[in-house]
Amino acid sequence: MWFTSDNAGPAAPELMQAVMEANDGHAMPYGADPITARAQDRVREVFEAPNAVVHFVATGTAANALALGSVTAPWTTVFCHRNAHIEEDECGAPEFYTGGAKLTLIDGEHARMTEAGLARALRFTARAGVHNVQRGALSLTQATELGAVYQPEDVAALAALARGQSLPVHMDGTRFANACARLGKSPAEMSWKAGVDVLCLGASKNGAMAAEAVIFFDGDRFGDLAAKGWEFELRRKRGGHLFSKLRFMSAQMDRWLEGGLWLDLAGRANAMADRLAAGLKAGGRARFDHPVEANALFPALPRAMHRRLHEAGARYYMWPFDQSLEGPDDEMLTCRLVCNWATSEADVDAFIAAANG
Amino acid sequence: MWFTSDNAGPAAPELMQAVMEANDGHAMPYGADPITARAQDRVREVFEAPNAVVHFVATGTAANALALGSVTAPWTTVFCHRNAHIEEDECGAPEFYTGGAKLTLIDGEHARMTEAGLARALRFTARAGVHNVQRGALSLTQATELGAVYQPEDVAALAALARGQSLPVHMDGTRFANACARLGKSPAEMSWKAGVDVLCLGASKNGAMAAEAVIFFDGDRFGDLAAKGWEFELRRKRGGHLFSKLRFMSAQMDRWLEGGLWLDLAGRANAMADRLAAGLKAGGRARFDHPVEANALFPALPRAMHRRLHEAGARYYMWPFDQSLEGPDDEMLTCRLVCNWATSEADVDAFIAAANG
Amino acid sequence: MWFTSDNAGPAAPELMQAVMEANDGHAMPYGADPITARAQDRVREVFEAPNAVVHFVATGTAANALALGSVTAPWTTVFCHRNAHIEEDECGAPEFYTGGAKLTLIDGEHARMTEAGLARALRFTARAGVHNVQRGALSLTQATELGAVYQPEDVAALAALARGQSLPVHMDGTRFANACARLGKSPAEMSWKAGVDVLCLGASKNGAMAAEAVIFFDGDRFGDLAAKGWEFELRRKRGGHLFSKLRFMSAQMDRWLEGGLWLDLAGRANAMADRLAAGLKAGGRARFDHPVEANALFPALPRAMHRRLHEAGARYYMWPFDQSLEGPDDEMLTCRLVCNWATSEADVDAFIAAANG
Amino acid sequence: MWFTSDNAGPAAPELMQAVMEANDGHAMPYGADPITARAQDRVREVFEAPNAVVHFVATGTAANALALGSVTAPWTTVFCHRNAHIEEDECGAPEFYTGGAKLTLIDGEHARMTEAGLARALRFTARAGVHNVQRGALSLTQATELGAVYQPEDVAALAALARGQSLPVHMDGTRFANACARLGKSPAEMSWKAGVDVLCLGASKNGAMAAEAVIFFDGDRFGDLAAKGWEFELRRKRGGHLFSKLRFMSAQMDRWLEGGLWLDLAGRANAMADRLAAGLKAGGRARFDHPVEANALFPALPRAMHRRLHEAGARYYMWPFDQSLEGPDDEMLTCRLVCNWATSEADVDAFIAAANG
Repeated sequence: MWFTSDNAGPAAPELMQAVMEANDGHAMPYGADPITARAQDRVREVFEAPNAVVHFVATGTAANALALGSVTAPWTTVFCHRNAHIEEDECGAPEFYTGGAKLTLIDGEHARMTEAGLARALRFTARAGVHNVQRGALSLTQATELGAVYQPEDVAALAALARGQSLPVHMDGTRFANACARLGKSPAEMSWKAGVDVLCLGASKNGAMAAEAVIFFDGDRFGDLAAKGWEFELRRKRGGHLFSKLRFMSAQMDRWLEGGLWLDLAGRANAMADRLAAGLKAGGRARFDHPVEANALFPALPRAMHRRLHEAGARYYMWPFDQSLEGPDDEMLTCRLVCNWATSEADVDAFIAAANG
Repeated sequence: MWFTSDNAGPAAPELMQAVMEANDGHAMPYGADPITARAQDRVREVFEAPNAVVHFVATGTAANALALGSVTAPWTTVFCHRNAHIEEDECGAPEFYTGGAKLTLIDGEHARMTEAGLARALRFTARAGVHNVQRGALSLTQATELGAVYQPEDVAALAALARGQSLPVHMDGTRFANACARLGKSPAEMSWKAGVDVLCLGASKNGAMAAEAVIFFDGDRFGDLAAKGWEFELRRKRGGHLFSKLRFMSAQMDRWLEGGLWLDLAGRANAMADRLAAGLKAGGRARFDHPVEANALFPALPRAMHRRLHEAGARYYMWPFDQSLEGPDDEMLTCRLVCNWATSEADVDAFIAAANG
Repeated sequence: MWFTSDNAGPAAPELMQAVMEANDGHAMPYGADPITARAQDRVREVFEAPNAVVHFVATGTAANALALGSVTAPWTTVFCHRNAHIEEDECGAPEFYTGGAKLTLIDGEHARMTEAGLARALRFTARAGVHNVQRGALSLTQATELGAVYQPEDVAALAALARGQSLPVHMDGTRFANACARLGKSPAEMSWKAGVDVLCLGASKNGAMAAEAVIFFDGDRFGDLAAKGWEFELRRKRGGHLFSKLRFMSAQMDRWLEGGLWLDLAGRANAMADRLAAGLKAGGRARFDHPVEANALFPALPRAMHRRLHEAGARYYMWPFDQSLEGPDDEMLTCRLVCNWATSEADVDAFIAAANG
Repeated sequence: MWFTSDNAGPAAPELMQAVMEANDGHAMPYGADPITARAQDRVREVFEAPNAVVHFVATGTAANALALGSVTAPWTTVFCHRNAHIEEDECGAPEFYTGGAKLTLIDGEHARMTEAGLARALRFTARAGVHNVQRGALSLTQATELGAVYQPEDVAALAALARGQSLPVHMDGTRFANACARLGKSPAEMSWKAGVDVLCLGASKNGAMAAEAVIFFDGDRFGDLAAKGWEFELRRKRGGHLFSKLRFMSAQMDRWLEGGLWLDLAGRANAMADRLAAGLKAGGRARFDHPVEANALFPALPRAMHRRLHEAGARYYMWPFDQSLEGPDDEMLTCRLVCNWATSEADVDAFIAAANG
């Protein structure tokens, strides 16, 4: 009964198989191998973006921080949600890779930024004199840190506000696959067609050992897309994120995207989240303050139920972490339950059974 | 006939097997899994260093840059050989991770720093007033970038000079395994017993897909070794180098060090380098300006021989890269030939045959 | 009628005279001159802090950013008020000099941080795992950016919270003189006795051409105060803030502190702010949402009054800047009026007359 | 008898007078005052560069580091002489302001870079793959750190090499005035007409209290010169180098350049250097390994002469610093003697008399 995070799950056997097959004799290092080229083509194909520049890195933090560093100056600020991973969970990696940019935090339910919130923040920073950090970029998280998704039209509206101020739009797509699978929209609709300039597409939480793609989309944003791509390569190397045996990472990304496997895996995780939510709702004692739109749920449960679950061996985090199991039985305490592609129906049902007592 | 670099080689089947086995259900992420703990213990055991703090990262550049950042301040300089990887091949990663430290370049044959050279550089920087960068650290590369190794007593003598100025000693051990296998000395003798404070131990060029260990040794250097280790963890995370599914990297390092496999693999690469050198020497037309002490050789060969080799499909780099195959036949042109654990006798012999015509 | 900012004012003639006198032949550069030594001693004497380490820089931004860089690590966050100068008006200098630390913004009326607000922020960041930036420092602004002051006991209570988490306490004292003059408390009571570890004491807005002192107080904070002082010197040089002819800056600071001149100058500015506030209140149409506790006032005035003032040649800023003079006459619009040591009663009275029509 | 450095000298009375006159009531801060505008115009006029973008900072280190940061990326290297101030005497400020760029050190007599040396360094860095830092900028020091000057045609030849690789050309003009006065060439000929893109023009060592101009020349280098200027302003603010009461610095620069005062002051220093050199040569015991082309001389003198000079109260530095007065009388020890605008004939003659015994 592992619901701590999707990164506690195993890698998908298809990807492991691809990694094994990639271990076939010698190959040019640092991405000059045929598997990497194939994986880059695969990304471009899946996103209907034949001119996109595609690079691979091993962690979501590296992807986000390198991407933000590529599109902002050190004296700017990145507009993001208060609960964004880049703000809360990357130990300042964006600050490190941007050379000390700020993050301007925007509120919004379910960790979803609102147009009004973004507009207010943009207005507040409109002065932009020499004493102020300048406006740098918009960063959206899809799916959000509280399990919600943005509809493509939500993204488009926010991106339009950013573009009105000539700001590039970054998307932290650590769980982009889950959002995509949920909405049934095409990857292109979910990204560049909605105004995203650079997408960090994560596979590590959805079947890979470690593989993330940073995708710079063609468009009017990057005057010289090839120059931007080369700059990214230098930044990646300088950050220590250029793998010599890149083929093993590329093989994961390539297989993940092949034949829709990535959406199948994400769909399984989403389905388990739905099943879990339904079971808890059926029990009648859970309260859902956040929608279940991807693969995570954030229900408030009575403390007694948490105790039962812990005794039954369920693994998950209280949200926030520091809520105690000691205290009144009936007090409702919010927790986070994350499903991944390998979460089993049996585990979900066991959790529900323990919860509902 | 791949002799471009040891990173062109495949991963060892033992390590691939270990990775497969690590993919067993759920596990705590970010290194809180049992495989990572086992691999850390294995490092400590192999190095006879029960108190050492051990962390894993995926690339040698990350290992070096994070380690140097951990032991120097931004306003210092790192003493290294002019041909060190940290100077020539990391696109400024040490500068990035140290916050802008300098590298002071020291000469020495075969990319091996001499005591006299280091002493001179230390003397020159002795002023160390407020206008000058301060002395930061000593960095040695074992084996060197030109295929030589340091004897433990060489390391000890250089480390003593550094310690005389209270400087920490870093070792870039990307090919530490090759040096260790060659000299038949214990890992402890080759590192902390000779005065090394922090070792970057590389497996990526010797059988792993991607795995490096950063080892902080106990001693009088780091007052509070646990605090130093925690700082490193924060730096690693901030650099985007903390893997969520760390178990897969740890599994490689664990298996690599188990039962001396790492030295076997390195020994194979070294033996192939010896065989290659012997064959070229027997041909009578190669000149060896650098000793063959690890797994790489840097022979000067007549241009006509290079042409023959290229026609025969041999893959390797001219050293420096930009020497042309066009020109007088007899001119001697230096090249770099690197063997790895998977280099076959057949490949070596084919190379020799093509070379010697 | 200049009320834009205190930095629009001239330098005090006493300080200009001291600068002239400092121009007496040759002197050792970079602070090794007798005037600098005297000025440092003067600071220590005025603050009853015989062991304090004292350095001079030319701008408040440099003082704050260098001081914060000296007491925090790049992976930490600085707790400050949402309206702090370090957040709003330094173009990211703290981020630059800390190597990319965050600022955690805390609310509170009149730009004054509350104990509850700080306690909440400290609690929220208590997790402090490897994914999170760590807690770095507390920064208070005295007087605040909205013209309020902290009582020494307010500072002590906030500092106690910080010290409870082992956080150093920084004070942005750009207008420390105004606060000190207002409260009639000793500089020591207002700083180290209340728990301040490092004070940036500004003279540039109160009679100097350009002079700020960064004062590291003795105490249990800085294990080795001399080492901290030397580190600051290296940071200052590296930031380009070490003046060769430092004697001219030191002469200003020395004369400013001599015989209480600094408090006289600040007292004059405060008195003019009081006179201005009284006159506006007497007119019956101004609304004061913020107290007048230093040398600045932030009254809301009817738009028609603003128009009259602008026609009469009064210079000051709307607060926020972008409020228009076009619109309904009676709408109340907040502005900022700052007095300095040279503000004349005549100017104040002319302003009042124009305002009250 | 002060010959330690030109920054030990006083400020020129004309500049002090200008500073006093600038202290005339209120003025807009941060450079929006009329004196700053006038000084910027003055720079443009003196350099025959009507479109140049001109900014003022207080120290040469700030000027150099901010200028280099403005024209290079963090992953590049700056080509400079091994003895350049940016390498030896700025405690890593260029690394700090560039975000960690390297300096590639080039040899050449008298701290003067040669075409051959630069060409070799450019060739060596031609590979410029992703593993290597990229070529960033050329930096020349005029006059050099060993008292030599570049002829405009020398600068032009070096700049042509840089421009051949699309590299911007920076000039550290801390003693540009001395070079200019010596050669009798126009400021334009000495700078942009010879290919300099950005000049750091120093007054602090030649009559000012603290004033340096950073001049971005018009040309094909900076596509959008206004954008480059704005970026510099943000960098200056972020570095804490934007003075609120900038008028006092601008007044110095304005007066310095008015009516050729700057060249008069530099000419006086140069003349005293000549007189000193002539006197030492006449004594027959000094050896001159470096030419006397600006305001500094680097003679080798017998140790006994050094002893005599120290006993007579002469102040100057041994070069390098750490040569001892203890030892054989006849051993020749090099020293540095720097004259400034205020060095008197009496001081020079007293020095000569003491030296020649």
